[in-house]
Amino acid sequence: MSLGPITKPVRIAVLGAGRIGQMHAELLARRVDGATVPFVFDAVAATAEAVGARLGLAVASTIDEIMSSDQVDAVAICSSTDTHVELIEAAAAAGKAIFCEKPISLDLALVDRGLAAVRASGVPLMIGFNRRFDPTHRAVRDAVANGKVGDVHLVRISSRDPSPPPIAYIKVSGGIFLDMTIHDFDMARYVTGSEIVSVTAKGAVRVDPAIGEAGDLDTVVIVIEHANGAITTIDNSRQAVYGYDQRVEVLGSAGMVASENPLATTTLFRDASGTHQDTLPYFFLDRYVPSYVNEWHAFVDAITNGNAPPVSGNDGRAPLIAGLAAWRSYREGRTVTTAEIDDQHGGDRS
Amino acid sequence: MSLGPITKPVRIAVLGAGRIGQMHAELLARRVDGATVPFVFDAVAATAEAVGARLGLAVASTIDEIMSSDQVDAVAICSSTDTHVELIEAAAAAGKAIFCEKPISLDLALVDRGLAAVRASGVPLMIGFNRRFDPTHRAVRDAVANGKVGDVHLVRISSRDPSPPPIAYIKVSGGIFLDMTIHDFDMARYVTGSEIVSVTAKGAVRVDPAIGEAGDLDTVVIVIEHANGAITTIDNSRQAVYGYDQRVEVLGSAGMVASENPLATTTLFRDASGTHQDTLPYFFLDRYVPSYVNEWHAFVDAITNGNAPPVSGNDGRAPLIAGLAAWRSYREGRTVTTAEIDDQHGGDRS
Amino acid sequence: MSLGPITKPVRIAVLGAGRIGQMHAELLARRVDGATVPFVFDAVAATAEAVGARLGLAVASTIDEIMSSDQVDAVAICSSTDTHVELIEAAAAAGKAIFCEKPISLDLALVDRGLAAVRASGVPLMIGFNRRFDPTHRAVRDAVANGKVGDVHLVRISSRDPSPPPIAYIKVSGGIFLDMTIHDFDMARYVTGSEIVSVTAKGAVRVDPAIGEAGDLDTVVIVIEHANGAITTIDNSRQAVYGYDQRVEVLGSAGMVASENPLATTTLFRDASGTHQDTLPYFFLDRYVPSYVNEWHAFVDAITNGNAPPVSGNDGRAPLIAGLAAWRSYREGRTVTTAEIDDQHGGDRS
Amino acid sequence: MSLGPITKPVRIAVLGAGRIGQMHAELLARRVDGATVPFVFDAVAATAEAVGARLGLAVASTIDEIMSSDQVDAVAICSSTDTHVELIEAAAAAGKAIFCEKPISLDLALVDRGLAAVRASGVPLMIGFNRRFDPTHRAVRDAVANGKVGDVHLVRISSRDPSPPPIAYIKVSGGIFLDMTIHDFDMARYVTGSEIVSVTAKGAVRVDPAIGEAGDLDTVVIVIEHANGAITTIDNSRQAVYGYDQRVEVLGSAGMVASENPLATTTLFRDASGTHQDTLPYFFLDRYVPSYVNEWHAFVDAITNGNAPPVSGNDGRAPLIAGLAAWRSYREGRTVTTAEIDDQHGGDRS
Repeated sequence: MSLGPITKPVRIAVLGAGRIGQMHAELLARRVDGATVPFVFDAVAATAEAVGARLGLAVASTIDEIMSSDQVDAVAICSSTDTHVELIEAAAAAGKAIFCEKPISLDLALVDRGLAAVRASGVPLMIGFNRRFDPTHRAVRDAVANGKVGDVHLVRISSRDPSPPPIAYIKVSGGIFLDMTIHDFDMARYVTGSEIVSVTAKGAVRVDPAIGEAGDLDTVVIVIEHANGAITTIDNSRQAVYGYDQRVEVLGSAGMVASENPLATTTLFRDASGTHQDTLPYFFLDRYVPSYVNEWHAFVDAITNGNAPPVSGNDGRAPLIAGLAAWRSYREGRTVTTAEIDDQHGGDRS
Repeated sequence: MSLGPITKPVRIAVLGAGRIGQMHAELLARRVDGATVPFVFDAVAATAEAVGARLGLAVASTIDEIMSSDQVDAVAICSSTDTHVELIEAAAAAGKAIFCEKPISLDLALVDRGLAAVRASGVPLMIGFNRRFDPTHRAVRDAVANGKVGDVHLVRISSRDPSPPPIAYIKVSGGIFLDMTIHDFDMARYVTGSEIVSVTAKGAVRVDPAIGEAGDLDTVVIVIEHANGAITTIDNSRQAVYGYDQRVEVLGSAGMVASENPLATTTLFRDASGTHQDTLPYFFLDRYVPSYVNEWHAFVDAITNGNAPPVSGNDGRAPLIAGLAAWRSYREGRTVTTAEIDDQHGGDRS
Repeated sequence: MSLGPITKPVRIAVLGAGRIGQMHAELLARRVDGATVPFVFDAVAATAEAVGARLGLAVASTIDEIMSSDQVDAVAICSSTDTHVELIEAAAAAGKAIFCEKPISLDLALVDRGLAAVRASGVPLMIGFNRRFDPTHRAVRDAVANGKVGDVHLVRISSRDPSPPPIAYIKVSGGIFLDMTIHDFDMARYVTGSEIVSVTAKGAVRVDPAIGEAGDLDTVVIVIEHANGAITTIDNSRQAVYGYDQRVEVLGSAGMVASENPLATTTLFRDASGTHQDTLPYFFLDRYVPSYVNEWHAFVDAITNGNAPPVSGNDGRAPLIAGLAAWRSYREGRTVTTAEIDDQHGGDRS
Repeated sequence: MSLGPITKPVRIAVLGAGRIGQMHAELLARRVDGATVPFVFDAVAATAEAVGARLGLAVASTIDEIMSSDQVDAVAICSSTDTHVELIEAAAAAGKAIFCEKPISLDLALVDRGLAAVRASGVPLMIGFNRRFDPTHRAVRDAVANGKVGDVHLVRISSRDPSPPPIAYIKVSGGIFLDMTIHDFDMARYVTGSEIVSVTAKGAVRVDPAIGEAGDLDTVVIVIEHANGAITTIDNSRQAVYGYDQRVEVLGSAGMVASENPLATTTLFRDASGTHQDTLPYFFLDRYVPSYVNEWHAFVDAITNGNAPPVSGNDGRAPLIAGLAAWRSYREGRTVTTAEIDDQHGGDRS
């Protein structure tokens, strides 16, 4: 199937109108000059109606209505993770460009099925690793890519949420390594430009015993060996009471570069007890909206210019493998190579 | 004339579609949930058409069309300074709520004429001192208002532009004390909560001799004595090559509070030559967009709740008097009281 | 009189063993490799004895014993201000190199008498403006001197003590402009490399009414015009409850440079209420000991290498003139030129 | 053998006058009020003579001269690591209080022999983990100990040298885990107050192949599980070209606390290219002198007050076990418990 040229404004239907879908619909409708939102859809019709009413957008009552519409150039898949691959297949079949929120799936076989459909159809696909588009983290990547830090020796990532999600969410999340660390696996690949060769994971339940009872961890450390010899250390916590802590640091032969946390404001207060500043932004909507806007501009630019989107299907697949390796490493108390996970799976990734 | 109740969304026509007017139109149309833009107008029709087309807004061909429309609750006066008072009078006569960009006028008698019209009609009026709505400066004011810094002893304001405006602009700007310092006079009143009693100004031409030839200064220092005994020092420069430098600091009996500059990003780079971070935001559109959004929310909230807008006509008038006092102080080499300017004027400010 | 060569270690007798004299004696005896302390002297014999015993230093019972000793190469004048000129004259007559704490005197005629004695004898003289030797402020000066900030446009100095001295001290201090601001007048000359042409001073009593009753101010702002056209703003407070606040900032055509306050430690604490760091160093002994050590190395190096010490007699005289101008400006409500003070005095400063 | 009371000033002979011994001798002689240095000794007589001459200290020609002297209360063992245990035994036999630089030995059996001698004699022993006395790291420990961060969840330590030592040094150093990481194992125990249960180590040669040829690593990451359930991550590099990078961070249930790096100065420079600050202190003598002074005060205070010194023999032993576990973990590609190292050794540690 051949995909016709896409011109601006790109008409992007939003599939899934939960928290992240609503945000994407609003950004696309109001903040991304090259995009419009022809439809919003949600499995719960009332949710779609509410979002449509608030933003003045048309609501589709079925997925088919969107896939068959000639008013739709692309879809933004923002629904629950277990629906992603099916929607990817439908969009690929319909010749729509695809933006898919991370993770593609928690099941590597399904990921490969979805990516195969994309390859077969030739539609552009971009995975929603928004942190790549945060100016602060991007400057870290750029400093590495431009040679300012020299050969990469060590990477250090801290990524901590302000508070745990509901236990119901945790139970379907794939666990912390697939839900939280997956962003950091992506970041490690992004800033080093080097694949993950092995994963060593340690973890504990320190925040809430209920998380442990749900079979998950809330406090983890992961050490990565990269193909280029660099070593990355990641720490994750489900609960940093001081806010959404997001730091990436690269040490190389010529220097170091780090994305420090911004503060909510830069006001400074001093008294006899010391020096006091504001909190960190509380969570991702407080911190990362500019990254989402940049992400959309990158998607729109890629598909209107006929370029490959900057976050590929393989960029969605590799962190899943790392996350699966992390769970195995944690459970078996040993270093696990990504080849071990990937060979086992035996998927066709040509 | 009685003004009927205003309910959300407030329909705000934008008068003047230059740089600041365009920004207000876009923010009102896209970022302020409680507002819509029924019309945009500019004396240059093509300018209004371009903005209307980009934002999907209706264009009015005359001011009267706006003032007589029952689809308009309020006007945002964003045109050149010399047109402000006339538009205030027209809007007051038409019973429209008024948002007016600073300064109201460079002529104190005209200011008083405009404020008299507002008083007579009873329409709400808010002056666009956006920096009051910057979260960083607001936190300084709040710390003072909440007693966290105790009695105010000293205030220190640095306000520096990245580069001078065109000489043509400078010639009609009223000069640096009325164009730049006027924001800082407002800030001094805002953070101290105390009126300006005297002004002592020093100045020089250090950046560009052409500024001096146009009768203006580019590098100035102003010392203010407040009614409550506090002393404020302001410095302004037309050229801080490192970016838009905006700092306010208050020293009191219990501590100090300061709004430090944010950086464009919080990425940190270290090498053998030192520690390197980003620049400041380049200019006001890079720094102050959140303050403009907050400003609009404050205006919308005030007029829908029937409250007085938080920046009054007198808040627009007092900095003008201080600016006129600064010019006289500079020219006569002595401290000038605001009473001296105000008494001379003899306006009715009851 | 011809002064013989001085070789390291330089033998420096300390005159005056109060707080600052004790510190100098200890630094010279223990921290300055090129110096020894042959004698310590104090008008109160018990004070000298106590310091001598603690540090293992010989105590002189009279000034003459020091001036006539061939074991003494130099004297450090650390006694009360009113004794400085007499000691300078005695040391000059005895052919001793002289280090004199600031200010030389509160009386311009006495300063000139002392400087005349120094010129007549040819002994080296250095004035103790220690802040010039603080690495942080020195880096500001160096950035200006090396052209990194371009032409100087504005200088901004904040210099605030943590708490006021005893009223008894204030009464003999010459007042805030001669006691505190004198350091900042020196700093303004040091970082700009340009003389002070005029002084405009404003002041208030905000901290303690007893300071006002003693005829002094506790909260002041001073604006300086320099010979090169730059403008300096200084603010001083006798009470910054958050610690010893010492900042110097220069804006020039090519950038800005500022000495920010260090914190007592660089530990960072974050919780749900915000970000918390340590206090500033409490007072000058907590902040400036390294500057005093550097000062002594500069003195020792200059006199052993036969160079002029880096802080000259005129560097002691000029800030006094500025301080006298500040008092007159404050009292008469107008800008006062330094020429006006200096001409009035009519001293011979060739 | 019974040890008589020790009174101030404590007379501390310095054994070993290399870089660290010289520093200790100078600090004890000049900066620690409660201490004197009766002798300095070095295996190379000329080294001892030079140090003695520079500091005005007596030189002992043999160890026996020191051990048998009644002018010596304590010894500071600053010689090469392979001599430590023998000197500890000699000092214990002579009834001298002992300060011993880290590590006690690279051989766990020798450590236990030395500690047994100390226990048998009853002399006080303190191990020189100076970083515990750095005010910045100490504030981290205090925040944990005082409950300010709540239960400890994660610890993150970065400890990086500016450049590698000579290969000759590396060959006798015990390798990076015993030479560099040993400080961080101590820090992990210090800030958490909890023993190390397991060690997982990863490493690479990224800086200099000659380090690898010498059998060592230059870039390592270590994950520690503590008895209290906390997880510590350490990264070490032999080469951070930007200076001596020393950071410790603790995340707990109530907040986080971190010792940030100080900068060499707090001067700030801004131009159109960005914001520029100074480098980090270059190496340990630039960063940690205050910690060494505090360390000596702690030693002197403990032995004059009859208290146990704050860094015990076991505090010297535990990091060695962790370091040995790290080497085994690295070599065998698995997590190694400290019990495994300790049980294997079978030493008597009662």
